Formats: sequence, C-alpha cells, structure tokens
Amino acid sequence: MSALMNSETSYADWIAVDWGTSNARAWAMRGDEAVAHATSDAGMGSLAPDQFEPALLAMIEPWLGRARMPVVACGMVGAKQGWCEAAYAAVPCPPVGGAPARPETRDSRLDVAILPGLSQSGPADVMRGEETQIAGFLAQDPDFDGVLCLPGTHTKWAQISAGEVVSFRTFMTGELYALISGQSVLRHSVGEGWDEDAFGDALSDAMARPEAMANRFFSLRAESLLTGLPPGAATARLSGLLIGAELAAARPYWLGQRIAMIGTARLTGIYGTALTLQGAQPETTDATNITLAGLTAAYHRLKDTP
Amino acid sequence: MSALMNSETSYADWIAVDWGTSNARAWAMRGDEAVAHATSDAGMGSLAPDQFEPALLAMIEPWLGRARMPVVACGMVGAKQGWCEAAYAAVPCPPVGGAPARPETRDSRLDVAILPGLSQSGPADVMRGEETQIAGFLAQDPDFDGVLCLPGTHTKWAQISAGEVVSFRTFMTGELYALISGQSVLRHSVGEGWDEDAFGDALSDAMARPEAMANRFFSLRAESLLTGLPPGAATARLSGLLIGAELAAARPYWLGQRIAMIGTARLTGIYGTALTLQGAQPETTDATNITLAGLTAAYHRLKDTP
Repeated sequence: MSALMNSETSYADWIAVDWGTSNARAWAMRGDEAVAHATSDAGMGSLAPDQFEPALLAMIEPWLGRARMPVVACGMVGAKQGWCEAAYAAVPCPPVGGAPARPETRDSRLDVAILPGLSQSGPADVMRGEETQIAGFLAQDPDFDGVLCLPGTHTKWAQISAGEVVSFRTFMTGELYALISGQSVLRHSVGEGWDEDAFGDALSDAMARPEAMANRFFSLRAESLLTGLPPGAATARLSGLLIGAELAAARPYWLGQRIAMIGTARLTGIYGTALTLQGAQPETTDATNITLAGLTAAYHRLKDTP
Repeated sequence: MSALMNSETSYADWIAVDWGTSNARAWAMRGDEAVAHATSDAGMGSLAPDQFEPALLAMIEPWLGRARMPVVACGMVGAKQGWCEAAYAAVPCPPVGGAPARPETRDSRLDVAILPGLSQSGPADVMRGEETQIAGFLAQDPDFDGVLCLPGTHTKWAQISAGEVVSFRTFMTGELYALISGQSVLRHSVGEGWDEDAFGDALSDAMARPEAMANRFFSLRAESLLTGLPPGAATARLSGLLIGAELAAARPYWLGQRIAMIGTARLTGIYGTALTLQGAQPETTDATNITLAGLTAAYHRLKDTP
C-alpha cells in the first residue's frame, strides 16, 4: 500500500476511487485534476462489509481535512458482497446516471457515493465498473454514436447512442482463456510467444464452426504431443478460437458499426487484429485514466443534482 | 492404499493394471477371472519414472511368487511423462493391437507390458486409456459396428467397424464444465439440483447458436443476480450449453448411427438424455470392469503373439 502525496496541492476537493475485486485505486482531486494517487491491494473480494471504511481510510486519510470530503467510488465495492449494494440502473440509460449507494460511515468526514452498475433484462446481463469507463469515454467524445468494445476478463460490447448505453453483451472470453491456458490440460501446450497466422486461422475456423470449440481445444494438446506444436502457436490458436466464437456471436455489434475499443494495449491489439481481419475498422482510444474521467463526470453530475 | 487378498486363489496367472493420472487399480487374474483387487492413490501424475516400480510392487507384491509374472497395464502410465512411453498406434487399427512398451524393472519377477494409446493425424487427436475400454466393449460385442461415446473429462466419440477404431474425436467438455462450475464467476451461481427443462432448452440453444457460448455462460451469472436463477437450473443450463455445442460438432458421429455409451451412470444419463432429445437412440452398456475386460483381451493377444 502506498500513498504518494503531492505536497504543493494538499487540499483536495473530492476523492475518486476505483474499487475492484482484487485491488483499489484512489485519487485526490482538485476539480478535474488528480493531485495525488494511492493504491491498495484491499480489493472487494478480500473485505467484509465493516472492513471497507478502514481500508478506504488507510488509502485516503492523508488527504482529509476537517470538513466532509466527497468520495465517489465505482466497481465491485457496490456489489451485493461489497461495502454497500448500489442497485443496478437498467439500460437504456446514461452510463453513470443512476442513484448512488450511500454507505454509513463512522468517520463523519467521509461522504461516500458508490456508483451503480448497469443491468439489462433481455438477454440478462450486468456490468459494474465498465459503465464508469464508458462515462469517461463519453466525457471525451460526447457525441459518439456506435459500439464500444471493452475486452477483458468479461469482455463487454455496448451500443451507445445519444449519451446512453442502449444495450450490451458480456462474453466470459478472458476468464475462459485464463482458466483453459492456466489450469486445463492445455497448460502443458501453451506458452510464451505468438503466431499471427495461427491466430487468424483459428479465428476463421471458430467463426465458421464455433460448435467445435471443445474439440479444437483438445487438438492443440494432441498436436503438441504428436507434432510438437510450438507453445506460442498454441497460445495464439487458443486465443483465436475463443475470440472467433465471440466475434461470430457479437456480429450485430460490430458489422457495419462505428467501433471504439477501451482496454489494455495487449488486449485491444488482439481484438483490433481480429476485427480488422473481418473488415471492421476499430478505433483505439487512450484508456489511460479513463475510469478517472468517468468518476469525474459522475462527481460533477452528483454535485449538480440537488 | 489397500491390497485385498483372496486366500483361496493365491496363484495368479497374470496381473491387470489400470494406471491413470490420479490413481491406479490392479487385479490378480487367473485366466479371465479376477481373484484379488488392489487400489492405490499413486497416480501417474504424482510419480517420477523411478517411482513406478515401487508403487506397483506396493500394490501387487502379495500376488507374486518366484516366477516371472506378466503385468498388463493401460492408461497414463504409458505417457511421455509416465513410467515408460508407449508410442501411440495410429488409427485405423484395433483398439489394443499396438506393440506395448516394456519398462526395465529391478525386480526380475516383473514382466510389464504397457499398452499404447491411439493417435489420429487429421484432425490431430489422441487417447490413452479409453482404447482399453473400447477393447473391453468389443470383447463383449465383437461385431459392433457404429459409434462409441465415452463421456468424461475428455469425452471421446469413436467410430468402430470390423473390430477397429476407424476415427475418433475428443471434446474437452467435462474439463470445461469442471473449470467453469468450480473456478469461474459461475461458481457463485451453480449448485445442487437439476432442471431437466432448463437442460433441454440450453441444449437446443447451444446447438442453434454455439458461438454465443461465452455470452450464455455470463447470462447465468446475470440471471442469478437479477432474477434469482436457482442453482440447480444454472447447473443444468451450463451442462446443456456445453453438451449442446459438442453434439452439434459431433453430429456426423451420432446422426443415423448406432451409438453405444460407456461411462458412469451419471454422465451416460446426461448424454443419453441429450442424444434422445435429438432423436438418437443411444444404447447404454455395462461399464463395470470394462477396462479389465479390455486388459484381459490385450493379455490374450500378447500371449498369443510369439
């Protein structure tokens, strides 16, 4: 845990917190500018409800004065198993328009608002955290009309129009990749390296025959035993198979649509290649501090709401 | 570890061993009859090459006399990481016709033969252990012409004709089910119970839209958060989605074919339901001691080979 204080600017107006399952980040904010930053490995997954306030104070106490301090938080901190449940806002709706949860605190200086995630009833879907990234993207490009792709553990495809999330779909692609490459029999076959052609071939194969996935996975093991398939090629093919099926299912979200991607350079690179191979022209966005931009947009919105 | 000796019949002719990744079973045989049985948790996965002989002796030493004792073993004991690699026999071929591996032993009473698995070059596939179950099935029904389905961690579909395995396909369905239900975010949504209608609906859905799998998985989580999807229904749907995609891909193996299933009652029940919903009429077989029947067939074959 570290708290890096910028001594010139010790009076924050408010504090932004991105609180996920495995860690948390906080920024001391003066208006729209971050003046200090702290991180913690006290993620939501490791905390009981009464441990959130001490964990928050351990990150941000140096930034508190005597007055009440607005704290705007997003992410799994608002889940049912988190600090205080922030009920989902149902799409279509603006990404951070819903009423926040207001956990009670023992420290009277804390004025905490936890942003709700988004839900969709048909087909059933939820997001918690990505809505704030979407808000950050829209703060930079308010007139965006198209589809946002947020590749990750649970990749999201969100249709955006008139500042609202119209619909979205989640694919467990990243989590499946991690489980299969790290814990299945394929852990003996995948490894360092990458093979762009193998990725493209597997992508096409999965788009054409997604039903064969569980067989194609095992073929990677068999080829590594029988013909010494290089670990990097196995990695690229596993990735291509999973993303190919996802692209086939998400086709209405990218075919003929304006698409922008938000995510790490590695993942947006892989998804970008896949989409480009299908003739799409995905835009990459600067995802640095995009969550912070979304928290800032939410802060202004909350401040302006009586 | 236990060795249960039947004192009436202390002179075995030979010893059968089914040696998998996580455990081993041995039978003292007089001709085709098992006269004693021992089990061990010293599976191939936990043994270095020089630990196999002591692990074998710990199971079977009470059954040895002064003479050399034929020991016929199948399973992962013959893998590259096992005791002694038994090179794959390439299909089409009889299930246990290939030349066994003959590990050197320090104990001169041991005459060990390790049966090879089967391989297929296009599409690449392998099996190790299931070929002996297939041999056991064919020992009981030598004229079987059709498809054998062996559901399990790595489900096999094998086309059988004229006593040979003509071709086969492996699906990692069971391993995916275990990883997703036990270790992904869905572990919070699946649980005890079963819902036959939910299974059938998910099966049809996956056969029609297998590409949407990674999205349908996440829908189970979303429905459990939003509408309280019962854990048993989530379990049945997860199973139905995985098996549905497999059935869509394995269609040439079951459509219009005679099909027999070999496996546990639970798994052959689930696969049997799925196949029956597609209009197929799978036969269930008595899988008790089917591996032993295959080892017995292999023993006779080895004895008759000069």
